[in-house]
Amino acid sequence: MPELRYDPLQRRWVIIASDRDIRPSDLGPICKYDHIEVCPFCEGKEANTPPEVWAFRELGTIPNSPGWKVRVIPNKYPALKTEAEDKRKGIGYYDMINGVGAHEVIIETPQHKVSLAEFPPEQIKLVLLAYRERLRELYKDTRFKYVLIFKNYGKRAGASLAHSHSQLIATPIVPRNVIIKLAAAKKHYEEKERCLICDLIEQEDDTKTRVVLSENGFFAIAPYASRFPFEVFIAPIAHNYSFAEVTDEELERFSHFLKNILLRIKYVLNDQPFNYVLNTSPNIQAKPKFSEQWVTIKYDYHWHIEIIPRLIRIAGFEWGSGFYINPSIPEMAAQYLREAKIK
Amino acid sequence: MPELRYDPLQRRWVIIASDRDIRPSDLGPICKYDHIEVCPFCEGKEANTPPEVWAFRELGTIPNSPGWKVRVIPNKYPALKTEAEDKRKGIGYYDMINGVGAHEVIIETPQHKVSLAEFPPEQIKLVLLAYRERLRELYKDTRFKYVLIFKNYGKRAGASLAHSHSQLIATPIVPRNVIIKLAAAKKHYEEKERCLICDLIEQEDDTKTRVVLSENGFFAIAPYASRFPFEVFIAPIAHNYSFAEVTDEELERFSHFLKNILLRIKYVLNDQPFNYVLNTSPNIQAKPKFSEQWVTIKYDYHWHIEIIPRLIRIAGFEWGSGFYINPSIPEMAAQYLREAKIK
Repeated sequence: MPELRYDPLQRRWVIIASDRDIRPSDLGPICKYDHIEVCPFCEGKEANTPPEVWAFRELGTIPNSPGWKVRVIPNKYPALKTEAEDKRKGIGYYDMINGVGAHEVIIETPQHKVSLAEFPPEQIKLVLLAYRERLRELYKDTRFKYVLIFKNYGKRAGASLAHSHSQLIATPIVPRNVIIKLAAAKKHYEEKERCLICDLIEQEDDTKTRVVLSENGFFAIAPYASRFPFEVFIAPIAHNYSFAEVTDEELERFSHFLKNILLRIKYVLNDQPFNYVLNTSPNIQAKPKFSEQWVTIKYDYHWHIEIIPRLIRIAGFEWGSGFYINPSIPEMAAQYLREAKIK
Repeated sequence: MPELRYDPLQRRWVIIASDRDIRPSDLGPICKYDHIEVCPFCEGKEANTPPEVWAFRELGTIPNSPGWKVRVIPNKYPALKTEAEDKRKGIGYYDMINGVGAHEVIIETPQHKVSLAEFPPEQIKLVLLAYRERLRELYKDTRFKYVLIFKNYGKRAGASLAHSHSQLIATPIVPRNVIIKLAAAKKHYEEKERCLICDLIEQEDDTKTRVVLSENGFFAIAPYASRFPFEVFIAPIAHNYSFAEVTDEELERFSHFLKNILLRIKYVLNDQPFNYVLNTSPNIQAKPKFSEQWVTIKYDYHWHIEIIPRLIRIAGFEWGSGFYINPSIPEMAAQYLREAKIK
């Protein structure tokens, strides 16, 4: 029997249509690499990209030349632009803001043919370090209210180049889904003086059926109201509102954890395309819409990552309603991922 | 220069990344029909579907046999089921409702190889009649809070069968996107005692740049903050909160209007896949969450249809943020559609 499940953080109902259960054996072809003559993300091709804004490099190497491990560049076709002014105006009933922001690409490795899950943990740590450093740097600019860090893996997930990379977009507003989560977390804190995500982790740890992995201070579940088959939610067990506040030691532990989860997904789902999104605190230095908004954020918000394998098509129902039909039972997905024999 | 635009009805920001403008000439292959040996939606194959719940038939023909023009059947693989009880419970911080609802397929024609845009207007009118009649019938069941009617055209838009059809899903909750719109419309009415959508239509009619067609009492625009390239918003000019209240005479006029719009989209976009969604009032007979909610709905809400051509992929940014990057300028899209030489 199908059921509707409500996610208290996302404030969203999802239909779990269990009769249609997707099993990994139903899955189609694996994620293939496209090869292009000259990949602009490969080592030695630095001149083919805009100049780097950050890189982790061997001592003595110069910017925009070989010798880097991770390299961050502005997106050649940015959705938003740093050189714009934060100008706002009303147009009748509508509102407009200039397209101010930043759009960067994190090139995760100098090598063309290796995917994030296959990286050694120390390379994953450098990718996570790049995320943290760019977050810290961009949050110095108070025009930017939020920095969204995400990865599109595979063509069907929206990646236009095969070379392993993530992206970030700094926006002059806090995106709607983030506002919804912030409001849910704030309301919970006001009522209980506890963090909602801390509470959810504790409840999931008691229930066990949706836990994928709990190790090294990090926690991964198949969310109760997963929108998509094999969706995974990852958070640190220790409360922390912002990825910008993560220590080097936590990055080290998290690199092993993230690799473990990505390998499980890759193994169980036969290397299907996926997206992941890092959810963190908005820029609390930036003038918020209502200044009291960020007073409790250090206590009520909790950074996390959502991984969304791209196994099903989104159709008219989802666009029109904002709620989702998931043909897979989260408890089954968790079991597949938990029991995956990696390595 | 890109800009961020806010939609006052959807309460959502969209990035209009005009530098990447999509032009119809960029578009790929047209929408092809798959042919299967025995299509269960074809005339004469009625025994291959669940028994019909509604049909427009020639006098003297019997249910589940040939002689119909439009036929409505339960979905063979329903996302929600009518036989379930509306049972609700909390599970720790989570909430659950049994999967009660209805999931039906509207077979729009007995013929296999003709698409909705190509139908004669009188056949489109029968499809619209089916929508209205099912809405009226399902809203008699107070377990159903909302009926979402939508069409997936083409494989990439989520259609699994080529034979022209729409679907409806009756849900025991009002979907999140509908709640957001209802709240925006209600707030506008409380402030101004005017309908938000009536006001938007008037403003668009003054501005002209986003109007696609205004004819026979209906109005179509490329929305100011379109999420997707060539998105079209259609509404009746005369205020009406519910599609269930539409008269036969309005259906007649609307069938010509809808055909005109679908032909423009088909012509300009080279027959690409699309979704459309009918947005109408929730079931005001059903016990609402807050009973005062529907007091003004007849005055503040306004039914409409959103048509979403499926030209771009949705990636991590959109899933994580709930806001969208549209690589096409709505004013340009409106111009292409307005100037399309149909017939």
